[in-house]
Amino acid sequence: MRPSNRTPAQTRPITITRSFTAHAEGSVLVEFGDTKVLCTASFTEGVPRFLKGQGQGWVTAEYGMLPRSTHSRMDREAARGKQSGRTQEIQRLIGRALRAAVDMKLLGENTIVIDCDVIQADGGTRTAAITGACVALVDALNWARGKGIIKANPLKFLIAAVSVGIYKGEAISDLEYIEDSAAETDMNVVMTETGKIIEIQGTAEGEPFSHEELLELLVLAKNSIREIVDVQKAALS
Amino acid sequence: MRPSNRTPAQTRPITITRSFTAHAEGSVLVEFGDTKVLCTASFTEGVPRFLKGQGQGWVTAEYGMLPRSTHSRMDREAARGKQSGRTQEIQRLIGRALRAAVDMKLLGENTIVIDCDVIQADGGTRTAAITGACVALVDALNWARGKGIIKANPLKFLIAAVSVGIYKGEAISDLEYIEDSAAETDMNVVMTETGKIIEIQGTAEGEPFSHEELLELLVLAKNSIREIVDVQKAALS
Amino acid sequence: MRPSNRTPAQTRPITITRSFTAHAEGSVLVEFGDTKVLCTASFTEGVPRFLKGQGQGWVTAEYGMLPRSTHSRMDREAARGKQSGRTQEIQRLIGRALRAAVDMKLLGENTIVIDCDVIQADGGTRTAAITGACVALVDALNWARGKGIIKANPLKFLIAAVSVGIYKGEAISDLEYIEDSAAETDMNVVMTETGKIIEIQGTAEGEPFSHEELLELLVLAKNSIREIVDVQKAALS
Amino acid sequence: MRPSNRTPAQTRPITITRSFTAHAEGSVLVEFGDTKVLCTASFTEGVPRFLKGQGQGWVTAEYGMLPRSTHSRMDREAARGKQSGRTQEIQRLIGRALRAAVDMKLLGENTIVIDCDVIQADGGTRTAAITGACVALVDALNWARGKGIIKANPLKFLIAAVSVGIYKGEAISDLEYIEDSAAETDMNVVMTETGKIIEIQGTAEGEPFSHEELLELLVLAKNSIREIVDVQKAALS
Amino acid sequence: MRPSNRTPAQTRPITITRSFTAHAEGSVLVEFGDTKVLCTASFTEGVPRFLKGQGQGWVTAEYGMLPRSTHSRMDREAARGKQSGRTQEIQRLIGRALRAAVDMKLLGENTIVIDCDVIQADGGTRTAAITGACVALVDALNWARGKGIIKANPLKFLIAAVSVGIYKGEAISDLEYIEDSAAETDMNVVMTETGKIIEIQGTAEGEPFSHEELLELLVLAKNSIREIVDVQKAALS
Amino acid sequence: MRPSNRTPAQTRPITITRSFTAHAEGSVLVEFGDTKVLCTASFTEGVPRFLKGQGQGWVTAEYGMLPRSTHSRMDREAARGKQSGRTQEIQRLIGRALRAAVDMKLLGENTIVIDCDVIQADGGTRTAAITGACVALVDALNWARGKGIIKANPLKFLIAAVSVGIYKGEAISDLEYIEDSAAETDMNVVMTETGKIIEIQGTAEGEPFSHEELLELLVLAKNSIREIVDVQKAALS
Repeated sequence: MRPSNRTPAQTRPITITRSFTAHAEGSVLVEFGDTKVLCTASFTEGVPRFLKGQGQGWVTAEYGMLPRSTHSRMDREAARGKQSGRTQEIQRLIGRALRAAVDMKLLGENTIVIDCDVIQADGGTRTAAITGACVALVDALNWARGKGIIKANPLKFLIAAVSVGIYKGEAISDLEYIEDSAAETDMNVVMTETGKIIEIQGTAEGEPFSHEELLELLVLAKNSIREIVDVQKAALS
Repeated sequence: MRPSNRTPAQTRPITITRSFTAHAEGSVLVEFGDTKVLCTASFTEGVPRFLKGQGQGWVTAEYGMLPRSTHSRMDREAARGKQSGRTQEIQRLIGRALRAAVDMKLLGENTIVIDCDVIQADGGTRTAAITGACVALVDALNWARGKGIIKANPLKFLIAAVSVGIYKGEAISDLEYIEDSAAETDMNVVMTETGKIIEIQGTAEGEPFSHEELLELLVLAKNSIREIVDVQKAALS
Repeated sequence: MRPSNRTPAQTRPITITRSFTAHAEGSVLVEFGDTKVLCTASFTEGVPRFLKGQGQGWVTAEYGMLPRSTHSRMDREAARGKQSGRTQEIQRLIGRALRAAVDMKLLGENTIVIDCDVIQADGGTRTAAITGACVALVDALNWARGKGIIKANPLKFLIAAVSVGIYKGEAISDLEYIEDSAAETDMNVVMTETGKIIEIQGTAEGEPFSHEELLELLVLAKNSIREIVDVQKAALS
Repeated sequence: MRPSNRTPAQTRPITITRSFTAHAEGSVLVEFGDTKVLCTASFTEGVPRFLKGQGQGWVTAEYGMLPRSTHSRMDREAARGKQSGRTQEIQRLIGRALRAAVDMKLLGENTIVIDCDVIQADGGTRTAAITGACVALVDALNWARGKGIIKANPLKFLIAAVSVGIYKGEAISDLEYIEDSAAETDMNVVMTETGKIIEIQGTAEGEPFSHEELLELLVLAKNSIREIVDVQKAALS
Repeated sequence: MRPSNRTPAQTRPITITRSFTAHAEGSVLVEFGDTKVLCTASFTEGVPRFLKGQGQGWVTAEYGMLPRSTHSRMDREAARGKQSGRTQEIQRLIGRALRAAVDMKLLGENTIVIDCDVIQADGGTRTAAITGACVALVDALNWARGKGIIKANPLKFLIAAVSVGIYKGEAISDLEYIEDSAAETDMNVVMTETGKIIEIQGTAEGEPFSHEELLELLVLAKNSIREIVDVQKAALS
Repeated sequence: MRPSNRTPAQTRPITITRSFTAHAEGSVLVEFGDTKVLCTASFTEGVPRFLKGQGQGWVTAEYGMLPRSTHSRMDREAARGKQSGRTQEIQRLIGRALRAAVDMKLLGENTIVIDCDVIQADGGTRTAAITGACVALVDALNWARGKGIIKANPLKFLIAAVSVGIYKGEAISDLEYIEDSAAETDMNVVMTETGKIIEIQGTAEGEPFSHEELLELLVLAKNSIREIVDVQKAALS
């Protein structure tokens, strides 16, 4: 029934490659099937002006798509001179989610910028990005601990994300592009490694959905995220 | 317990004033307590280029805050030369929600732009905006039917929105600013007049939240939205 | 003869509502007939860099129109990414006029920003804005004196403004939109409460005008401004 | 008494050099003493979209200062990415003034763009620009008549401009920079060759001014403009 | 003597991976040692407006660096709102070089956009980009021929590029970052597969260089490019 | 054979006028035939932030074309809100070339900005700009030495530039516009007064060129630059 013959609850093959590029303190290529996102974590000492002198750190994220990561070429945002509303919405989501996973006091007056650049898109880029970014964040934190810049581990828990939705009347997990573009309802869920909710964003693309459907989607998301966290842990071990 | 002595489930006084300004096809001042948003609906014939010739209409929204609608003055976005990520995120939410309420085929090749401008902010501006924008939309649709530009009523149902959250460990509805800035969890919910979900966006500002808390918030939102729809209906009658 | 049946020298009903919104140190809704402008004055300690250490203050203004304050919807300047030349011309005029009314030494190293946002436009928005902004300025100065931030009153005199013009061959005062768009000559005058000139900007939209016509317009402006100042004084008392 | 030993009514030496550059249909270097502005008129067939099919033409102007036309270097507007409010205010003034001199019906569906670029600044750049632009406009109109693109002469009258002001308590004409920066009142006047008013913009930089002072300044302006028109006519003959 | 122990004439290991991503008509990852650039060629029917109806095609290029492709993080150009001068200079160079390799008449009214995005930077990104872009271009042309969109092969010859320079007094080929940043002279050379020159850009970073040094660098470049073309041909066969 | 009847090696008449405008520390009008560029050098104490405290100076350049310096009017870059890629490429070239001529240690913590504004264009504007800018630079350096701001002369050597190219199969020097637009190969060369190379940028506009053609062009450039340096020296003496 699904174009890929997956069962409703089945995610795509998920792989996480650490140290994908050389310079960043954390550099992860995350793949959810044909969706491939490069997540780099850049650690710098110091914080933005609005946080100076408060003894706490900052984590933020930026998101971009390579112009031909998509089926037809998109305009390059740098050439157009501004980031789209979609881009801003996504990078705000990624940043919020990562900040929830970090104890800012333990991070001290240091900043981590996570860049999530989509190399190839096939649906679910924002949830793949959060999943990969969390691993890059861990690597950057470990780098800083190895350097003695921070003492205790600021990571409160791993976070991971998945998209779920209602497609042809059925709740499915980890939608690929052709499912996503035909879905009646689309929901992105970010959870901790213990299944608590960090962020939930559900949208009725077609018909409004009921509380029952919402609950069904949540269960699906929780199960998928448990599997995804296992992939994160395997990559980190 | 709440700064305003409201019960957890109690919304602020909500008023909807139609025909607040003279030129727009729909013009509504919506007030959720001290949050005041002017929502105007502008009806024009024709659609954006990407929809031409498809026999369907378009609904979109823009959002702004007057520089001193807030406690301390914010920079004017027109002077800075760009809209913030927050602004774009909100106006995309408003637009999506309103489009869910309209049958685009019945709208025909016509466009409605909803401008939501915050005159005074005290938390919940985006949910107030959606609530007021829906009434302005109805007025603009009725205007167009009165002019004979559209035949059947494209409105599928009324929509309304409320913010709910966990504040000092308790689930409360319709957060005002001091509650919102201290909330552990913040959730914006958009529903139809019959209580189906259009959009749900929940964020753990502090600690991650559980499924039980999510359910509790949803019930609170559903009840509040039922009341808010009654205010919409009273204003429209 | 005038669309509103006013006599040539007659202004529209002018009302000034103080404390229109809650947060600003001065907040005034000024109405010249159907033209409605919200003027807020924001008082902050400190001055822009170019004035630091000179023992004097700064007053500046920004102007905007809500997209549907006009007959047909205008593009939102924040979305277009820049303020129009008209907007900049008007806000420079408002700022210059207000600075003329303030003793910058007595203001001390403090800044007042006046935001003039047009809620509904029917001609004469810039002169209404100056008139309302002056009252908001007074409120902000009084607020600062009440707080003990400034000692002596920096206000040198009240200022007010009106548009005058030649319409169907006759000099008239306080043009509304349909008069304004058909006027042969359009002149905006800003004066002190004692009738001295702060700014005069006259433009031949159609035929060039003579010195005699200029003088006639000035007399008209002086008389109208005297009345408008009375409204300001009544609002402030 | 004046830094240049001029009498109050005396303008600086004014020269107008036509055909200063090779490519433009009209190209004029205008000098008011040490203020030097290059004014080029570019004639193109066709009109902007908002005028299409109405059988009339369009005249507009743009203004710029070379970065080191001034005493200390100004930022290049092209590098900063926007034109200042002052620039926009000035180019709007120049455009309005020139449009007043042209019969748009006789111009037909053709456009003239006047570029006024300040090579060297010593006060009065906008009035010098208007004066030179008018001559460049005449050359471009004659070029188009020579080509047979337009039949009748669309020029209604020559226009010229001068700045006048109150300096050390006395009304003076054609202020140079050090006078301008110390003037209590500054007024720019644009008139037709027969002394009718096209535009008047007077600002109290220091103290408000009286009607008597305004009249005195107007007389001064009228006399100076009469002389300046003579220079235009000599250059054109 | 070289940090990598290469001989002066020795290039880094060069690899070209085709079909690196799925959507583009040509997609190549090119590696010059640790410099890695993703080059995608997007083929679309139609040409930009300035070429319409002339029976010829268009080839253009855009260039970007991922923010953390470099040792320390660079600002994201999309977030800053503009491309740097360096970026524009490089993408203009890539576009010119590729256009020299294509017969625009045989391409017909079709457009190819080449996006060169630097995944990891270690010197020579622009020459690596040209080398990889040429292979992506060939793939896109073959794709279009396979589809029957174009008949004859528009490729005139392969092109490839290398950077050469004078480092510690000696002419060397294919500079890596630490050589590049210390080089006295830096020269980028683009040649055809038969060794004719498409573009040469040489800059004295330290001391001016002599004609003899220029010749020596050219010989070095020619030899390296011959080797690089062999890598291109092997990748394409 | 050349449109101007020049011999292949013959440059256009070249004139250099110093002190062309009044305010700049160096102000030069350079003319290569009908190409006229105003080059001003602005000397200011202090350096940009990235150089602070390093005991060395900075030289940079900006380039612009007046909108009607060209055959048909170009958009004003300040109005469009950004500099074109071509503009940025050229001003980067000018800046690099001038920095090669200055000993930054001897300049001390001072900055020189060179503005090159094209008054009239007929090919070769960037090489004319470099030639004129060098003379303006010398004047600014001498001004600073006269003021005692710098002690020793930071100028290492004069630099000058010329464009050469292959036109109708023959190597020619100092191309004017109609030659430039038809040239098969176009090369800009910047040299020191002793004939060493500062920058060489050669582009095959049509067919790729051979090493022999490159050498021929270089000889031509060297001879022309020797003559141009003589004009510089004559102007400076």
